[in-house]
Amino acid sequence: MDPEQFRTHGHEIIDWLADYYRDIESRRVVPEVVPGQIRGALPTSAPEDGQSFDAILADFRELIVPGMTHWGHPGWFAYFPSNSSPPSVLGELLSSGLGAQCMSWETSPAATELEQTVMSWYAQLLGLPQQFTGVIQDTASTATLVAFLTARERAGADPARLVGYWSSEAHSSIPKAARIAGMPISRRRVVPVDRNFAMQPAALDKMIAADIADGFVPGIVVGTMGTTSSTACDPLRAIGEICQERRAWFHVDAAFGGSAGIVPEVRPLLDGIELADSFVTNPHKWLLTNFDCTAYFVRDVNALLQTFSILPEFLRTKHDENTAAVNFRDWGIPLGRRFRALKLWFVFRSYGAEALREMIRGHIALGHELASWVDAEPDWERLAPSPLALVCIRHVPPALAGDEPALAKHNAALLARVNATGRVHLTHTTLAGQYAIRVAIGAFRTERRHVEDVWGLLKNEIGDRR
Amino acid sequence: MDPEQFRTHGHEIIDWLADYYRDIESRRVVPEVVPGQIRGALPTSAPEDGQSFDAILADFRELIVPGMTHWGHPGWFAYFPSNSSPPSVLGELLSSGLGAQCMSWETSPAATELEQTVMSWYAQLLGLPQQFTGVIQDTASTATLVAFLTARERAGADPARLVGYWSSEAHSSIPKAARIAGMPISRRRVVPVDRNFAMQPAALDKMIAADIADGFVPGIVVGTMGTTSSTACDPLRAIGEICQERRAWFHVDAAFGGSAGIVPEVRPLLDGIELADSFVTNPHKWLLTNFDCTAYFVRDVNALLQTFSILPEFLRTKHDENTAAVNFRDWGIPLGRRFRALKLWFVFRSYGAEALREMIRGHIALGHELASWVDAEPDWERLAPSPLALVCIRHVPPALAGDEPALAKHNAALLARVNATGRVHLTHTTLAGQYAIRVAIGAFRTERRHVEDVWGLLKNEIGDRR
Repeated sequence: MDPEQFRTHGHEIIDWLADYYRDIESRRVVPEVVPGQIRGALPTSAPEDGQSFDAILADFRELIVPGMTHWGHPGWFAYFPSNSSPPSVLGELLSSGLGAQCMSWETSPAATELEQTVMSWYAQLLGLPQQFTGVIQDTASTATLVAFLTARERAGADPARLVGYWSSEAHSSIPKAARIAGMPISRRRVVPVDRNFAMQPAALDKMIAADIADGFVPGIVVGTMGTTSSTACDPLRAIGEICQERRAWFHVDAAFGGSAGIVPEVRPLLDGIELADSFVTNPHKWLLTNFDCTAYFVRDVNALLQTFSILPEFLRTKHDENTAAVNFRDWGIPLGRRFRALKLWFVFRSYGAEALREMIRGHIALGHELASWVDAEPDWERLAPSPLALVCIRHVPPALAGDEPALAKHNAALLARVNATGRVHLTHTTLAGQYAIRVAIGAFRTERRHVEDVWGLLKNEIGDRR
Repeated sequence: MDPEQFRTHGHEIIDWLADYYRDIESRRVVPEVVPGQIRGALPTSAPEDGQSFDAILADFRELIVPGMTHWGHPGWFAYFPSNSSPPSVLGELLSSGLGAQCMSWETSPAATELEQTVMSWYAQLLGLPQQFTGVIQDTASTATLVAFLTARERAGADPARLVGYWSSEAHSSIPKAARIAGMPISRRRVVPVDRNFAMQPAALDKMIAADIADGFVPGIVVGTMGTTSSTACDPLRAIGEICQERRAWFHVDAAFGGSAGIVPEVRPLLDGIELADSFVTNPHKWLLTNFDCTAYFVRDVNALLQTFSILPEFLRTKHDENTAAVNFRDWGIPLGRRFRALKLWFVFRSYGAEALREMIRGHIALGHELASWVDAEPDWERLAPSPLALVCIRHVPPALAGDEPALAKHNAALLARVNATGRVHLTHTTLAGQYAIRVAIGAFRTERRHVEDVWGLLKNEIGDRR
């Protein structure tokens, strides 16, 4: 494919994507396919000879797209949104097109310095104290693992004595990071939560004291701002003070919720963040940036570098001794790195800070509005507070009240019927043992009418089958 | 930005990229910028109000592009190539544009099944035995870490007794993976190499025997097909047989060289690969696929799943019990995953297997040609065999013969002068303590005339300064 053919097919694809965005609402959110169906429609071996790009694009449209789940659909209320925006997609097109490899300053000077710049912009928007330095990682799972490994390195102590602490509502990536970092189950403490699903700091302190008495070392504590099940927010200041006293690494997982920290009235949920050693939040969730793009902020950059830097001769450059030339390969696990700063720069500039704040405010307001509709209906329950843009609910028909297994079955069936319409997509969780339907608001194209629609569908689908 | 504005700006960007590809040779490979220069030209805070996309694109062209190192330049001979192709960039544009999140089957059925399909195609092209199953990871560093963690899990033994083995020429990502997996320096064995920089299997076997005698457990052995310094190829069959006898996990790092396994006459370098437990190669290096795209093949999928799968309630889907519905989130470290299979599918289909083989053959032939030119010059030395497309050389003026420090200084200065022309970019390494200039062939746009040019520049730049 020469540059002119690239131009022709590139224009075709841009047109296809523009049409896709314009018409996305007419698609089902989740496709009607069964496991194996798409694979069965594809050849079992690669072709020997090249095929025309027109044929490839036709197969993309006819075989692949009908099997995709559309995360950009305005009816997306599942998991957390991955709310990418058109400027971000265009930024990523340029970074793919340049094909830059951003492992060291010399291999991509502009990419390195733009990453420093946008991470500094983001830290300011979040109101983070000056001592935090940012780096882009791929996902929050990886960033959390980086925090565990740095904590392990800094502790210096016999790793077999290190203990980790997080709440029973913490994300699965946290025990996964602990497992990878070599922390066996016997050294992972699950701290109980209060009725709002936030960590109980007194219980944490007691657990740490008991472990110290037993000869263990508190290695890391993870606090969450916006849990996955219910967006519960752990009391970061109280946890941070305990960590300071106990000399444990304090990592804050704000993968979804952190983006809301750019809104001043939400920032109290991050109160105490200056006590954190590391902080992760995903612009690829709630800040209009294409997956993958995780912002990892760390207080002690040297601890990070001591954990990850390795310099073989073949990677040495003439700038290695120049502290103005940062080599981000030493700030995480992979050596090779994409030029992710470009798309984030495009988002910050094309929207501007105030429009991003307004977006977050709008989503939170929609969440509060949905919560008020739920609260006004006698047969519906909200199972957790809705501080951010997630509303956890269930339908409680009087005949089933108190019968947890029956309520779980009833609500799972209701969820399945609503999803089967193809107009919206929702997922579930359990909260204090109770089955909950999660309505996560924040997709790029979601408007008030889509929230009305999901609520209407939920109410409608209980109708005849109660 | 609405769909019509996306269309307008998307077309502008496609045109810019098409022009960029057409004219890339007229640019300097590495820019003339100093650390801090680009950052200094950028505002220190994000704008409050949105800015016009035209202004953003103008800044991209005027501030960012002049500070980029151009990995797609035909004069790229540094490190290893990251040889992306136009069809791959277009594939990635579609996957960015769809914004899919490929953590589980349900969150992207077509993406999951296309990944299974293209990994199967690739395994066939490489001639891998049927028992290997493939999954796409981001980088070889991550895939190697995945291998270490799986080996640790499978060994079951006290992790403090596990020992790892690799050659003195192995990539820095391997000790880095060992460090992350909690294997201290005292349990990392560096196996000596022969005069061709390939691991000595007899030395490996002796080391393992000594460790077993001392009560240690051989956890993992890493063999390399195509080392970074010189593309040396470890004797995989001999190493694999030792691993089988000693019950150690055998991981093969073929990050660059593995792609050449699609060429039948190169495949003997992978002889014994069926004895490997895991095998990593990067289509984003030498198979025309945009970074990032790492192919990780594993023999015992269950060992992988046991190491990485975690299933909290909020990730449960109705397909979790269906073995036809694979959830790739359980095949590695991050939960979130990009739709990387699409670009690889575009590459396999638009080129076809035979053109990909011809490309690899062409690069290897160019390497052999350059090697023959070097060998014909009395004052030049080749410091290692050139089985793939990398040629490691140095200039040895008679006056400096035998004076290693002077030769290192002389060749480093020569390298700096050649790179300063901006026409090509080369990097260096050391081989058996000798400074070597690496000429790595394989960029997408590199032709015979560019190899002639780099050789001419090397000979020319020694001229007056000898």
